[in-house]
Amino acid sequence: MMKHILSANKADPVKEINMEETLVEVVNQLCDRESFEAVYHRSNHHDVPMPSVESLKEILDELKSIIFPGYFLNSDLKPATMKYYIGSTLEHVYKMLTEQIQRGFCFSCTGSKNVVCHECETRSRLFSSSFIRKLPYIRYMLSLDAEAAYEGDPAAKSIGEAIFCYPSIVALTHHRIAHELFKLDIPLIPRIISELAHSYTGIDIHPGASMGKRVFIDHGTGTVIGETCVIGEGVRIYQGVTLGAKSFPLDEHGYPMKGIPRHPLVEDNVIIYSGATILGRVTIGKGAEIGGNVWVTSDVLPGHRVLQQKPFDIYYNNGSGI
Amino acid sequence: MMKHILSANKADPVKEINMEETLVEVVNQLCDRESFEAVYHRSNHHDVPMPSVESLKEILDELKSIIFPGYFLNSDLKPATMKYYIGSTLEHVYKMLTEQIQRGFCFSCTGSKNVVCHECETRSRLFSSSFIRKLPYIRYMLSLDAEAAYEGDPAAKSIGEAIFCYPSIVALTHHRIAHELFKLDIPLIPRIISELAHSYTGIDIHPGASMGKRVFIDHGTGTVIGETCVIGEGVRIYQGVTLGAKSFPLDEHGYPMKGIPRHPLVEDNVIIYSGATILGRVTIGKGAEIGGNVWVTSDVLPGHRVLQQKPFDIYYNNGSGI
Amino acid sequence: MMKHILSANKADPVKEINMEETLVEVVNQLCDRESFEAVYHRSNHHDVPMPSVESLKEILDELKSIIFPGYFLNSDLKPATMKYYIGSTLEHVYKMLTEQIQRGFCFSCTGSKNVVCHECETRSRLFSSSFIRKLPYIRYMLSLDAEAAYEGDPAAKSIGEAIFCYPSIVALTHHRIAHELFKLDIPLIPRIISELAHSYTGIDIHPGASMGKRVFIDHGTGTVIGETCVIGEGVRIYQGVTLGAKSFPLDEHGYPMKGIPRHPLVEDNVIIYSGATILGRVTIGKGAEIGGNVWVTSDVLPGHRVLQQKPFDIYYNNGSGI
Amino acid sequence: MMKHILSANKADPVKEINMEETLVEVVNQLCDRESFEAVYHRSNHHDVPMPSVESLKEILDELKSIIFPGYFLNSDLKPATMKYYIGSTLEHVYKMLTEQIQRGFCFSCTGSKNVVCHECETRSRLFSSSFIRKLPYIRYMLSLDAEAAYEGDPAAKSIGEAIFCYPSIVALTHHRIAHELFKLDIPLIPRIISELAHSYTGIDIHPGASMGKRVFIDHGTGTVIGETCVIGEGVRIYQGVTLGAKSFPLDEHGYPMKGIPRHPLVEDNVIIYSGATILGRVTIGKGAEIGGNVWVTSDVLPGHRVLQQKPFDIYYNNGSGI
Amino acid sequence: MMKHILSANKADPVKEINMEETLVEVVNQLCDRESFEAVYHRSNHHDVPMPSVESLKEILDELKSIIFPGYFLNSDLKPATMKYYIGSTLEHVYKMLTEQIQRGFCFSCTGSKNVVCHECETRSRLFSSSFIRKLPYIRYMLSLDAEAAYEGDPAAKSIGEAIFCYPSIVALTHHRIAHELFKLDIPLIPRIISELAHSYTGIDIHPGASMGKRVFIDHGTGTVIGETCVIGEGVRIYQGVTLGAKSFPLDEHGYPMKGIPRHPLVEDNVIIYSGATILGRVTIGKGAEIGGNVWVTSDVLPGHRVLQQKPFDIYYNNGSGI
Amino acid sequence: MMKHILSANKADPVKEINMEETLVEVVNQLCDRESFEAVYHRSNHHDVPMPSVESLKEILDELKSIIFPGYFLNSDLKPATMKYYIGSTLEHVYKMLTEQIQRGFCFSCTGSKNVVCHECETRSRLFSSSFIRKLPYIRYMLSLDAEAAYEGDPAAKSIGEAIFCYPSIVALTHHRIAHELFKLDIPLIPRIISELAHSYTGIDIHPGASMGKRVFIDHGTGTVIGETCVIGEGVRIYQGVTLGAKSFPLDEHGYPMKGIPRHPLVEDNVIIYSGATILGRVTIGKGAEIGGNVWVTSDVLPGHRVLQQKPFDIYYNNGSGI
Repeated sequence: MMKHILSANKADPVKEINMEETLVEVVNQLCDRESFEAVYHRSNHHDVPMPSVESLKEILDELKSIIFPGYFLNSDLKPATMKYYIGSTLEHVYKMLTEQIQRGFCFSCTGSKNVVCHECETRSRLFSSSFIRKLPYIRYMLSLDAEAAYEGDPAAKSIGEAIFCYPSIVALTHHRIAHELFKLDIPLIPRIISELAHSYTGIDIHPGASMGKRVFIDHGTGTVIGETCVIGEGVRIYQGVTLGAKSFPLDEHGYPMKGIPRHPLVEDNVIIYSGATILGRVTIGKGAEIGGNVWVTSDVLPGHRVLQQKPFDIYYNNGSGI
Repeated sequence: MMKHILSANKADPVKEINMEETLVEVVNQLCDRESFEAVYHRSNHHDVPMPSVESLKEILDELKSIIFPGYFLNSDLKPATMKYYIGSTLEHVYKMLTEQIQRGFCFSCTGSKNVVCHECETRSRLFSSSFIRKLPYIRYMLSLDAEAAYEGDPAAKSIGEAIFCYPSIVALTHHRIAHELFKLDIPLIPRIISELAHSYTGIDIHPGASMGKRVFIDHGTGTVIGETCVIGEGVRIYQGVTLGAKSFPLDEHGYPMKGIPRHPLVEDNVIIYSGATILGRVTIGKGAEIGGNVWVTSDVLPGHRVLQQKPFDIYYNNGSGI
Repeated sequence: MMKHILSANKADPVKEINMEETLVEVVNQLCDRESFEAVYHRSNHHDVPMPSVESLKEILDELKSIIFPGYFLNSDLKPATMKYYIGSTLEHVYKMLTEQIQRGFCFSCTGSKNVVCHECETRSRLFSSSFIRKLPYIRYMLSLDAEAAYEGDPAAKSIGEAIFCYPSIVALTHHRIAHELFKLDIPLIPRIISELAHSYTGIDIHPGASMGKRVFIDHGTGTVIGETCVIGEGVRIYQGVTLGAKSFPLDEHGYPMKGIPRHPLVEDNVIIYSGATILGRVTIGKGAEIGGNVWVTSDVLPGHRVLQQKPFDIYYNNGSGI
Repeated sequence: MMKHILSANKADPVKEINMEETLVEVVNQLCDRESFEAVYHRSNHHDVPMPSVESLKEILDELKSIIFPGYFLNSDLKPATMKYYIGSTLEHVYKMLTEQIQRGFCFSCTGSKNVVCHECETRSRLFSSSFIRKLPYIRYMLSLDAEAAYEGDPAAKSIGEAIFCYPSIVALTHHRIAHELFKLDIPLIPRIISELAHSYTGIDIHPGASMGKRVFIDHGTGTVIGETCVIGEGVRIYQGVTLGAKSFPLDEHGYPMKGIPRHPLVEDNVIIYSGATILGRVTIGKGAEIGGNVWVTSDVLPGHRVLQQKPFDIYYNNGSGI
Repeated sequence: MMKHILSANKADPVKEINMEETLVEVVNQLCDRESFEAVYHRSNHHDVPMPSVESLKEILDELKSIIFPGYFLNSDLKPATMKYYIGSTLEHVYKMLTEQIQRGFCFSCTGSKNVVCHECETRSRLFSSSFIRKLPYIRYMLSLDAEAAYEGDPAAKSIGEAIFCYPSIVALTHHRIAHELFKLDIPLIPRIISELAHSYTGIDIHPGASMGKRVFIDHGTGTVIGETCVIGEGVRIYQGVTLGAKSFPLDEHGYPMKGIPRHPLVEDNVIIYSGATILGRVTIGKGAEIGGNVWVTSDVLPGHRVLQQKPFDIYYNNGSGI
Repeated sequence: MMKHILSANKADPVKEINMEETLVEVVNQLCDRESFEAVYHRSNHHDVPMPSVESLKEILDELKSIIFPGYFLNSDLKPATMKYYIGSTLEHVYKMLTEQIQRGFCFSCTGSKNVVCHECETRSRLFSSSFIRKLPYIRYMLSLDAEAAYEGDPAAKSIGEAIFCYPSIVALTHHRIAHELFKLDIPLIPRIISELAHSYTGIDIHPGASMGKRVFIDHGTGTVIGETCVIGEGVRIYQGVTLGAKSFPLDEHGYPMKGIPRHPLVEDNVIIYSGATILGRVTIGKGAEIGGNVWVTSDVLPGHRVLQQKPFDIYYNNGSGI
């Protein structure tokens, strides 16, 4: 099996090759079902294209320009005529999002070709509408997040600076949008949206995580927040923080079981400093502080503080390297 | 307050909805002053558009192509005709940057409509000129940074490779540009520029930080360098390093006081290994080495070395998970 | 030396300046050989443009759309007509890649102008062909990586989700492509490709590193894998992990020696948790587990587990800050 | 009726106006049903977008690149790999054309919303397939037209020059495509395609006109060929020629009756020189020649020649103007 | 004078040339004031850019999409949400048009630098507002033109077809827009707009010409309508028609005097067939018909018809060419 | 022969068709050598791509922006920094034009693969340089043409208006550029350039025609100027004018002989009014005037005037149509 592939891999790189022949041969190999079936999705399903990452990027960019008027895409919005920009942009978002939601449903649809598709289309329109109705609420939550960023960082000069420059706002905008779609059980789309934020900011929040008001993730690079986390109000988290799972119960086939609550509960006003790791379904009580670089695998009581021990030796550098 | 938003949030997702009605209704909610005023900036100020992140991206891309001729945007520059490309690109940068500087001033302007704007325009042109005059100096500093990257990494094959591929150069290019604008007290623009570098590289340097010659930040993902840091010559920093503030003095309203010196002073030739955290206005003396993952909150003497204690237990894996 | 640059740097920012004069003056300074020679590459070499990062981005985007048909760029591919899209895209990739390989050779070519260039062109065509023939093998390896991602993360709902959303797949796609080019001794190009992945994902894998089958790098932000690493089959690595060099032997000029094996050997089925640091040419034996945030500089036996000591104190937060 | 519009038209141009108020007021007027209903098509019909001129331009550009491989869009096609480019481009054309055909049907559909639309979709797919199958025939006809252009013009250096530069080929390519769609009774789309050619070349051929083999329209600007013309083989036509209708029978409402044969029949090998006007259902017999600027409203026998009388006086110019 | 240019023109084409030297030399010649001053406009005036043909194209495209909703640019407009698209597009048009009007004023401004410019800016805003208020009227007039096109051509199947495909509508849309700007005495801009229509359609209408309701210009290629023409209601004109000036009174320097009424007056319901030429300030009376290719330089009474004499000889073609 | 094509043409349009099968079948037909060889050029020649119309459009747009600084593409050029824009644009033009000239040579090259190509490359560089050196001369000639347009049309308000709006300037810019390339015996490229002008303006000037100073072609739609025309200084030509060939000597195969002088000689200061047709190698003497719509096939003496006879009858319109 896969012999032609493995032998091709041994080809002598400096042997003279007729390029057009090579091209035709490689195209034939790549279009051989044996080659593509492990990485091709629709081969057994119905006739709707795959979700498009590019469209989802555009949807998110337009949603940001609606939520924070004047900050993104259109830098000259005035109250008297704002509804024209917001209306036309939102209508465009609605069409694109409906299409992507339908592609998401069809991607994970296991039914036969003709039975399911009509339902997918109707559901997509309904779910897209339902999401659109959440936008004022999402904007309200994000306005509180921006306030929290401004208040939480002495370097921030205004709420506007937070909206323009803070990765926390990018990550939470994607998250609060993705989370609403996740709650509607739309497959795949929320994950692509959250991974876009991960790529932009280094902050990796699973769309399943639940977030209270006024959350602030400062700097944020490398911070990971797992699928079943529940984060309270006023929580502040720094860069390099992991809110992860400790171990995965395995199913009868030896694979990790999917969907079990396995990530931390973080109560209101907790602060988690950079590099801290909190694993498993533990509770970090209200107002607790988790120090930098510490490793937590059990509950922390409200108002308590967890710090690293004096962790190092100091001596004069004799030049021998670390 | 916000009742219509919160009730909208409870809408039943699968109820049939007339999409056009929904759209009009949501647009009206989003254009309600109560909804947008917390995230809309110009409502009380004068009539100049907001800064544009897209324009600043373009400005930085063009500046990189000027500073490192041939590496970016235009891959075919020759000495005899180089001045045409550099001249026309720089003229374009000057126009765009003047515009963005003015938008930055207007964004944070608190004066009344007609008094301030003319001054903003004049200042913007002056400050843009002043910045342009710094470009030869900025290129000189970056050429030394590229040399430091080449010399500091055994995997680097040439200075050209450092310029093409090292996130250190991206981050320092953005930083040295942003820092000159920051020194001119231009609001907002330097922060957007540094956040762009953060997004591209994972290296988060506040534009207020001061950097000596020949700085090298290897790999760099997750490294954070705070607003009031002062970094000496020949300093080498690895990924995941935090040069942060320990605690924030609060003002009379209980908010962190802004602008107080609160980040480390790092003297010449210091090396800081990956994952180290240095907090507060401490001094890391000349030639000191800070080991990986350590946590430093007090001064380190010149030439000293700080290492993590033997930090772990080893035992045979019995399969019970961590 | 450099006096005019340093004095320019002291210019008074608020003095009135004739912009056109400033522009001409700064352009002249930037086009002065003294200014540009430290950052200009081709001044002493032959007449081929520099590699283009933009072209390499396009090449990688098109290769991803070929390897994972339907997921990227073209979301509507069907088996019966797939060969048209794959054929025309691959032909385009071949042309662009041949061009970039030639630019890479010329970039690092130290010969005289006319002797070398013809050979570069022939070699580029051969090496590009040779790489194209590896594509079925690269897809095969990546299909196993996608399987590993799906099996290794309880939050993953399908292999398709892994291909769409997991930074592990982005990083490994770039790596497996870059590594084949690296094995052909093509200069610079593989490093630019791997740095693109670093920018997108925060995962920094040197193209020289060797990777077995079924590798999974979960979340991945801040993970660094050095040039001479050898990674076995079924290895799982989390975010913030460093597989680095401990110290660099210096050459007679006091610079780090280039190309010496200096990074870890990681055997099959090892798991390395977030924030772990493994430095030097040590061996992590088959099936070992390295706990989060630990610091390893010596061999770990097969099947063993390395964990952090109880690393912290807990006490009630008295409000005095950390 | 229309009073507010007519009074607005009298507004004093130099009176100071609040722009935002003006904008809102004009938008409201333009969105008043009374204003838009005369120029808005779908108000009473079903929910499919209008045909898109931009898409039809793209379809024609791609079809030209398929019919004349290497001449347009993709200038580097080779026989061995040509099928990749042609296959992927044709698949794209098929999708776009099907969509535009459906929009054309819906545009002129007078049925009620739900009854017709499903049929439109099915028909569009069938008609698009049917058209695609005509492409080899269309290319064959156009290859003869290119030959005719080369042979008919002493200034033409090669058939390739004719394909690249002759408006005759542009006009006939659009026409032969539009005519096949016209024969399928697809509304509107063929007319938009022929009007595109009119705009590019100044040659206005109604898609209903029937054309034999080897037609050549030299220069062509201003030449008009009406809906019910029938043009034989080997016909040569110059610029400024009108093959029009003489008068229109009126229907009972006094409007011109639509669809009646009313344009000339031009038999094989006829030549029509520049500026000639031929009106009505007359026959220009085989091999006849119609001289420049003449006006023909009755049959011309085969082999006969029609020339303008000596049409002018010559005298010495005394400077008094014409 | 101009010696270096004329001698350059004699350069031997096949002599070996150092390209970089040539480039520098030619650039220097082109940037010599003697070379550019005859084709450079702003050299003696104030600091505002030239009008931009590209912006005017965009303005016209957007205006067409507003006037004929659904036909151009945005093919999916619905009454309930139409105001969002029209509002945001019109706001964009207003900004761009104000800018272009100002550039038009500055282009033809002969005052000194600081005196005039502020007035230009204010006037531009006023005149742009004033134009915007005319849009409902312009749409009303064009809806009647579309009706006239549908009624006047037996080949037209619907008013929608006329809007989509008839060059008459393109030309009249540009004209009715340009004419309103012309009436405001805005320099240059109206002419650029009308020349765009000339390029698209071959119909050349000077923006000064006055047009009644329900005008139809069928086919239209080559039709020219001069600056001081006055066209009545219901006039129908075919291709190749010239409504021109007979002779130009010369001023004291021997140049044609500008602005004198010198083109025909065409009363209501006149029909002018293809190729007719009407020159001078003559009146074509109500309901008159001017036959194809005739040449008219004096008044035609109402209801009269002007036809070409039997204009040709017919004889058998003896093959000797024309 | 061609049977499968002709039978495909008879396919029943409404029969149900499997689209993917159709696509594959049609692609195979189109890639059959029998189908493509009549319209495919390089099948028997060497390995250089075809000329690109898109590149030539870009070259012409950039040349216009160089010749008329500030009018096109870059609307904000100032004397002090003009050389940057002109230098970088001209360098770009040089590269693109060299490439297109080479493609032109290879297109019409009849030699064997390896012999000719190197020479083509060298010649292309030389001819491109040679052309570049003509630019100051071309600008000088066009500045006189702009002056002639301004002076020749009472509707023109300034020379700037002529440059911006007059099709005469577009056509002559293309022509003067194409003619210089034509004189260098570069195949195909000059014809594509002149056909672009024909498409934009309706003025069709063969690149072989020779033009004196101060030529003005007013309106111009439909005017045709043949390959061997020689036009003197100060000539004014209106729309719809044909300067054509009377008859073509045939070669021994019965085809028109190529390259024979066969078009009019038009001496200085001649005026040719709209619709005039002048055919054959006749001389129109200095200062002659050719009236509208006349037909000239013999010499006209200097200073003479040719006018149409009283060409029509007038009678009252009795409603019976023309």
